[in-house]
Amino acid sequence: MAPAYKLTYFPVKALAEPIRLLMSYGKLEFEDFRFDRDDWPQIKPTMPFGQVPVLEFKGVEAHQSIAICRYLAKQVKLTGANDIEDLEIDAVVDTVMDLKASAAVKEERRKQLFEETLPFYMKRMESFTKKNKGHLAAGKLTWADLHFVGIMDYLNFMIERDLIADYSGLKAMQKTVLNLPGIKEWVAKRPVTEF
Amino acid sequence: MAPAYKLTYFPVKALAEPIRLLMSYGKLEFEDFRFDRDDWPQIKPTMPFGQVPVLEFKGVEAHQSIAICRYLAKQVKLTGANDIEDLEIDAVVDTVMDLKASAAVKEERRKQLFEETLPFYMKRMESFTKKNKGHLAAGKLTWADLHFVGIMDYLNFMIERDLIADYSGLKAMQKTVLNLPGIKEWVAKRPVTEF
Repeated sequence: MAPAYKLTYFPVKALAEPIRLLMSYGKLEFEDFRFDRDDWPQIKPTMPFGQVPVLEFKGVEAHQSIAICRYLAKQVKLTGANDIEDLEIDAVVDTVMDLKASAAVKEERRKQLFEETLPFYMKRMESFTKKNKGHLAAGKLTWADLHFVGIMDYLNFMIERDLIADYSGLKAMQKTVLNLPGIKEWVAKRPVTEF
Repeated sequence: MAPAYKLTYFPVKALAEPIRLLMSYGKLEFEDFRFDRDDWPQIKPTMPFGQVPVLEFKGVEAHQSIAICRYLAKQVKLTGANDIEDLEIDAVVDTVMDLKASAAVKEERRKQLFEETLPFYMKRMESFTKKNKGHLAAGKLTWADLHFVGIMDYLNFMIERDLIADYSGLKAMQKTVLNLPGIKEWVAKRPVTEF
């Protein structure tokens, strides 16, 4: 039988990797469809809002990577225990996406990025791990952890350095996630890509 | 007794108005704290991640406007009926925020914005109202409707025109939302601001 989920994306980790980590963690079988970049002009018009990643399942064609992650987190039990914990998780995830947007700066703004913006974000993210037993939110493993670890290679590629090099709490969190059953196997077998 | 919720934001609608609409719809009393722009340098360092809106309640200091909206939607019963409907709602909301990001372009890109980007988004948004009984998602009134209507004045201010002028389904949806009990009263009494 074909897997219940089909993920369509470029042949990279980037925005799709948090989705792949969530499905791997939950042992949800998925077709990891990676199209050639040359084929994107043909594929783009067939995608909702002309963007990927897209996740197909049960007749649903889901777009928007964070919305997809939140849906999968519910299926694999990586949400909060109540509305307030989910609010905390959602805020962390949206903050990481803000950080990603901030990192996409022109050369002349890189100094400010490295000296102000990134330390500002990262110090706060690091403090979260201290307050949440080594995790980003809700005092436990949640999809906020998997999302951040999943997108980290892309962030590192964008900024051309290791975002969490100086942050021991975040490094420990990353290690925890990468050693989870399901995720460890996925990381060992996934295609090797630059970001 | 002081209201259970305190919202802190600039003296404008913008990113805070969807939050205000949700609380007004649910008859949740809130302190609508609008600080003077001149005071922002003093207030900014006291806010989580240096940003607003921030919503305080029950000892929680919540940031990230969309995360706050989603939390409030659960409290006032404007979510989907199941995980798939919530996924659909989340994707619409994130798409509106993408549209907002796309609208923040330099003058030389405005032609492309008006001739390509906005029609691309708006035709799809309009088609949603046809498939969802006059709403954006889940075939019923949800927080996706309130979010879009709440942020619309800000989008119109950014693009210097009426985003939905040519879209009858979206105009009807906006009218429906603005006539809801709670919201109608809020709109009548809220401070008049440009955006």
